[in-house]
Amino acid sequence: MAMAGNSQSISQSHPKNIIIMIGDGMGPAYTTAYRYYKENPNTEEMEQTVFDRLLVGMASTYPAKVSGLITDSAASATALSTGFKTYNGAVSVDVEKRPLQTLLQKAKSLGLSTGIAVSSQVNHATPAAFLTHNESRQNYNEIAESYINTDADVILGGGQRYFSTELIEKFTAKGYQHINEFSQLDSVTSPKVLGLFADVQLPWVIDDKEAKSLSKLTQKSLELLSQNPNGFVLLVEGSLIDWAGHSNDIATAMAEVDEFAYTIEIVEQFVRQQKDTLMLVTADHNTGGLSVGANGKYEWKPEVLHKVKASPDNIAASAIAADDWHSIVSDQLGFTPSAQEFSNLTNARMQGNKALAIALRKLIDLYSNTGWTSVGHTGLDVQVFAAGPGAKLFSGHQDNTEIAHKIFSLLPTRAFTNPSQ
Amino acid sequence: MAMAGNSQSISQSHPKNIIIMIGDGMGPAYTTAYRYYKENPNTEEMEQTVFDRLLVGMASTYPAKVSGLITDSAASATALSTGFKTYNGAVSVDVEKRPLQTLLQKAKSLGLSTGIAVSSQVNHATPAAFLTHNESRQNYNEIAESYINTDADVILGGGQRYFSTELIEKFTAKGYQHINEFSQLDSVTSPKVLGLFADVQLPWVIDDKEAKSLSKLTQKSLELLSQNPNGFVLLVEGSLIDWAGHSNDIATAMAEVDEFAYTIEIVEQFVRQQKDTLMLVTADHNTGGLSVGANGKYEWKPEVLHKVKASPDNIAASAIAADDWHSIVSDQLGFTPSAQEFSNLTNARMQGNKALAIALRKLIDLYSNTGWTSVGHTGLDVQVFAAGPGAKLFSGHQDNTEIAHKIFSLLPTRAFTNPSQ
Repeated sequence: MAMAGNSQSISQSHPKNIIIMIGDGMGPAYTTAYRYYKENPNTEEMEQTVFDRLLVGMASTYPAKVSGLITDSAASATALSTGFKTYNGAVSVDVEKRPLQTLLQKAKSLGLSTGIAVSSQVNHATPAAFLTHNESRQNYNEIAESYINTDADVILGGGQRYFSTELIEKFTAKGYQHINEFSQLDSVTSPKVLGLFADVQLPWVIDDKEAKSLSKLTQKSLELLSQNPNGFVLLVEGSLIDWAGHSNDIATAMAEVDEFAYTIEIVEQFVRQQKDTLMLVTADHNTGGLSVGANGKYEWKPEVLHKVKASPDNIAASAIAADDWHSIVSDQLGFTPSAQEFSNLTNARMQGNKALAIALRKLIDLYSNTGWTSVGHTGLDVQVFAAGPGAKLFSGHQDNTEIAHKIFSLLPTRAFTNPSQ
Repeated sequence: MAMAGNSQSISQSHPKNIIIMIGDGMGPAYTTAYRYYKENPNTEEMEQTVFDRLLVGMASTYPAKVSGLITDSAASATALSTGFKTYNGAVSVDVEKRPLQTLLQKAKSLGLSTGIAVSSQVNHATPAAFLTHNESRQNYNEIAESYINTDADVILGGGQRYFSTELIEKFTAKGYQHINEFSQLDSVTSPKVLGLFADVQLPWVIDDKEAKSLSKLTQKSLELLSQNPNGFVLLVEGSLIDWAGHSNDIATAMAEVDEFAYTIEIVEQFVRQQKDTLMLVTADHNTGGLSVGANGKYEWKPEVLHKVKASPDNIAASAIAADDWHSIVSDQLGFTPSAQEFSNLTNARMQGNKALAIALRKLIDLYSNTGWTSVGHTGLDVQVFAAGPGAKLFSGHQDNTEIAHKIFSLLPTRAFTNPSQ
């Protein structure tokens, strides 16, 4: 009787499930830009986005002093996952390289299920900092190998190249279902699952908008993890927002934010139905110094971005392979560059795919009036969005380490006696 | 009895005093940068700023559709002051150029006192949109003349050139005390007052950090406006943050934010003592596309900014007037430019004050690793900070027009029967 009562009170004071969602690199200019990108020109009112609906606060992102004021994804994911500041490059180890307990480890030790669903390789900095420890994010193979010891119930994303046949065999020997095609997702109806759907990262959303990759992985994660009556902790990352930001690629970035936003809406729906679930959405840092408008002009033109039919990477590849590349470029960009602009593109094309992709991105910036200050990260605070029990804890300003402390405080205070393994 | 009860319930459900503070152009990168600018390197912890302490939400700033997605100060001040979107350049008139009731007008009509304390000329776009109406912010003389009809109790800032002797006489004939020196502030012990302390804007804070101009004007405004037992509405603007942003001048901008932050702290202290006062702090838009870190480097160096002894405008003026300008520049910047950098400065110096100031600012950007995308505004959402009764109304995301609607809803629902005039 006493124990049952205790268990009851635990389930009342803590959310049963916690879903942490990270828009990698998605600083406030991305969500502002996204509002205008999504605006319906046929209505008088400006429509709110899911970000507007869920905003509760902001967070600082600086790393440990040894790394200055601007974080990388590993240090910020460590802060969000463990509550500790560390050096750039560290995967849930402190500045002395000692391992730090992560939220997913703690959850697992309490008898909850855990999972990750990301659009980068599954062993990239952010998911790694939630699942494991390493002195360097660059140790991709070590990180992949260490996943066998995490007992994570769901591991979904890219990264086939880091999982050797031997390593996959270890996973299957431990009871993991291994899949590498989206079409196989339906066949998975219970944990555990290791799903690797690309050699490295998943394809750009802009190149296959119907794929809905991240949202499908997230939906499947919710379905599988919900089977644990004790609850679960899930990390979802819109990883490629950051990658597009590093390339200063606004058209690609907006499509990535769009899929991340759609994924948030799916989770929001889950939270509305399962009233015992907390969702917490943030970014690990801001990437690229994106600005909505630039060059002294008081305009930003999202309509230009909607006409771009493919990623500049893909447009460049097509244009380099074809003789009539002018028409391909005009068709894929959705506008016809001027003679001078084509002359610049011709020079870039002679330097190869990368140079042409950069030139195309700059042309899209010019037509949409988009600005950037960096191909790296910047120190700008990021936003915090939340819904469900405990959401108000994240109101106002906080440091990214405090986000972790708050989530830790919402985990059950003692292990379930019937861990669902 | 019934009327007394009614009056009682009004005073309980509405804050008596409302203080609206606008950091012109102060988007989120300014407050992030400011945290690191203020950090005490001798402590282990990162100190919170007043912005961190008071953050409650964010706001979108876009103007009426006719002006696209990026607002100017006039349209955004109109939104904050009236609750309506309008075209860029409009001073509290709608897109048809019809006047819109402002918060300060409404407050005055209810028997509250009203005032403005700003660091720009008092007839600049933001204060104008709170006090009057004009189809163009450029009509400075018309706007100044119209102030005689506002009955504002406190008008403090710059702008001597727009107030002719005849206009000043009209103000004094109406009972206004007229002063034009900070030293005269002490002699003013009751409203009404017209204080104009500079030909146009007040001097840059970085050139006279001890002056504490905006905070002194604000302190005096609180003292004078508090004398109305019915309450007051005060607008305070840190106007020159925006001007420094337009010049992409990070050292000058940080000093302006510092004085604005200090002014907020004074108001915060007032709110703590007078528990019936709401303070609401926001920005009208983001200026310059400032980023904390740039150029692909993961660093930002606020310590460089603390060593800058004067505004680049002033350093340039000194350097152009002097033969030994190299030593002046090195001394005033706080670092010694390289031979190549001095060669660039020499070229700029030959083009005059403005070109040299720009070159100096770029050098400060280089040494501090600060980025900019524009000499104009950008569309990034801005932050909202609040304290006092009603503060929670401003939590989460909102449009700038909603801020005005919320403040209107906090005004008394009927006029005081004993207007203090």
